[in-house]
Amino acid sequence: MSTVRQRSDATGLHRVLDEATVLPQAARRLDTRPELWPDEVRIRVERLNLDAASFRQLEQEHTDADGSVDGAGVRDAVLAIVAERGKMQNPVTGSGGMLIGTVEEVGPESPLGLEVGQRVATLVSLTLTPLVITDGLAEWDGRSEQAPCAGYAILFGRSIAAVLPDDLPTALSLAVMDVCGAPALTARVVKQYVDGDPTGSRTSSRSRSPVVAVIGGGGKSGSLSLAAARAAGACRLIGVVPTDREAAALGAVGLADEVVVTDARDPIALRDSVAAAGGPADITVVCVDVPGCEGGAVLATADGGTVIFFSMATSFPAAALGAEGVAADVTMLVGNGYVPGHAAFALDLLRADPGVRRLFEERLS
Amino acid sequence: MSTVRQRSDATGLHRVLDEATVLPQAARRLDTRPELWPDEVRIRVERLNLDAASFRQLEQEHTDADGSVDGAGVRDAVLAIVAERGKMQNPVTGSGGMLIGTVEEVGPESPLGLEVGQRVATLVSLTLTPLVITDGLAEWDGRSEQAPCAGYAILFGRSIAAVLPDDLPTALSLAVMDVCGAPALTARVVKQYVDGDPTGSRTSSRSRSPVVAVIGGGGKSGSLSLAAARAAGACRLIGVVPTDREAAALGAVGLADEVVVTDARDPIALRDSVAAAGGPADITVVCVDVPGCEGGAVLATADGGTVIFFSMATSFPAAALGAEGVAADVTMLVGNGYVPGHAAFALDLLRADPGVRRLFEERLS
Repeated sequence: MSTVRQRSDATGLHRVLDEATVLPQAARRLDTRPELWPDEVRIRVERLNLDAASFRQLEQEHTDADGSVDGAGVRDAVLAIVAERGKMQNPVTGSGGMLIGTVEEVGPESPLGLEVGQRVATLVSLTLTPLVITDGLAEWDGRSEQAPCAGYAILFGRSIAAVLPDDLPTALSLAVMDVCGAPALTARVVKQYVDGDPTGSRTSSRSRSPVVAVIGGGGKSGSLSLAAARAAGACRLIGVVPTDREAAALGAVGLADEVVVTDARDPIALRDSVAAAGGPADITVVCVDVPGCEGGAVLATADGGTVIFFSMATSFPAAALGAEGVAADVTMLVGNGYVPGHAAFALDLLRADPGVRRLFEERLS
Repeated sequence: MSTVRQRSDATGLHRVLDEATVLPQAARRLDTRPELWPDEVRIRVERLNLDAASFRQLEQEHTDADGSVDGAGVRDAVLAIVAERGKMQNPVTGSGGMLIGTVEEVGPESPLGLEVGQRVATLVSLTLTPLVITDGLAEWDGRSEQAPCAGYAILFGRSIAAVLPDDLPTALSLAVMDVCGAPALTARVVKQYVDGDPTGSRTSSRSRSPVVAVIGGGGKSGSLSLAAARAAGACRLIGVVPTDREAAALGAVGLADEVVVTDARDPIALRDSVAAAGGPADITVVCVDVPGCEGGAVLATADGGTVIFFSMATSFPAAALGAEGVAADVTMLVGNGYVPGHAAFALDLLRADPGVRRLFEERLS
């Protein structure tokens, strides 16, 4: 540690090693020293949960000519990124993931309310979390998003961490918390429709129960978003999935009123299948981790409606220009991963809805 | 032309030459045949107006070691893109621009209401507009965003074009229409605050006049957004600009209550300077065409506030993870370039506000 120590900033700015002043998320490299600034917390890491878009990209990059995934190659890629950058941030997707571990040390000025020994999940992205891996990820085969990991990570003054609940298996809680921003924001937007006109674009401000389409409704963020939309008062739920198998799984748990099988990258097919299922949607929630779904999401949405993009594979220009290009008057939201109370809300949805829980457990098994 | 002709789709899908079904904006290559489908319009092109982010990228790519811009290199790059893709879409920024020209032929089923001989500006992006350049851009030196151009372009059933007004110089109208989505959406969001709570996140739904910060307030979209926010009822306007020269220009025309000079890529400086000028902002409008402003925009915005991203240099993951990373409960909007009536609204702002007009004329001179 250097003798002259810079003061800490709640954003973690003091850990940025880049020349320019950038936030940790935008930084190329972070300072991973284990010693804490007064408002920091150090976590003994137990498991990384890689972002789905990031993991998929790494898998594709390390797929052999015969189609088999080179798990060791995926593992080495993650190790190389973390060693070079001091954080896990996929250079292609820009995304990271989250982690769980045990609180090891709490700085005297930390505002997070954590205590040594608590098992927690970090709810800020790995893309801004100083991280050191000490076991070479030896327990991980590189074939799933959840990587057992020994090492440590640092939380800042303005980070977020949630204590893992006692009544749910760890892997289940982690999988829920990983995507908990999506159901919270979906519920908020649905409530805006139910409470009154959210766009301000119409002359009357009457309330109405919206039609909600969730693209990727069978996935983690998608199934929670369906449950959240129902709880918030949506009148009709359309789940869009890519395969018959996912359709059967989603149909069996009753989360959606209609389940349709469509390749969301085909904008015309998406538009037409959502329309046939009771659309266009007042609110379209994009939860699939593949690029190229922006145009279809816009076309599946009613004039004056709202599209919420949660996929980290979303392209900003594709969304902005795609809507303009078809003269679509839709409100497009960047899915903010933080909504106050999001983790507790998502865990409660899972506890209350056996269908959501079954989908999550099937994915984890 | 092939003898068996596919039916046209209002989105322009019938002009996409890619294997996959994608919209023209997402396509690699478009069919540029001059013959029209029944709902199309052909424009004789007179001038291209390249998107600022795209032009800046091309300029940087073609800057010599001594810092001088190779205009011929920029021109050749644009010609190569259009020849290869059948549209002007910068492969790095993903963005395009717009064009003006004269209506040459109108298909019998075109819904756009255009007539042969009208001078129009296209309000859909060049990234989805079939375009053929026939003069090698011989009249353009590659040193400004506005490129004189001979050739033709195609509009689809769902495209948008505006007839150029008689009372304003062409270059001025084009510059205004190029960014007309920004003031229209800014005005809509400000009105939502004035009319009542737009986020639905607070218990009371009281109306209030918002503080608005415009990052890049001295530019085209920025100055129009300031004027739009004032007209819609903002209580305090903060213009953020990168240089003293821009500050003097913006200060002289009285569009903002406070003008601050800050590098918007420095998130801490942006947060602190907006706070010192009467912030944090309820609404932050990002109009600068440089990457890396997402974090600062989020930090400059009050909890429960709204960030509108208009810059094509915006990174979706940087915005989503940046807000999450600092636990910021802000609504983030993808700046949709289309809002009904946007061109007429922006032209009226320019006509009504001598300050806006002066800034535009200084930029064009």
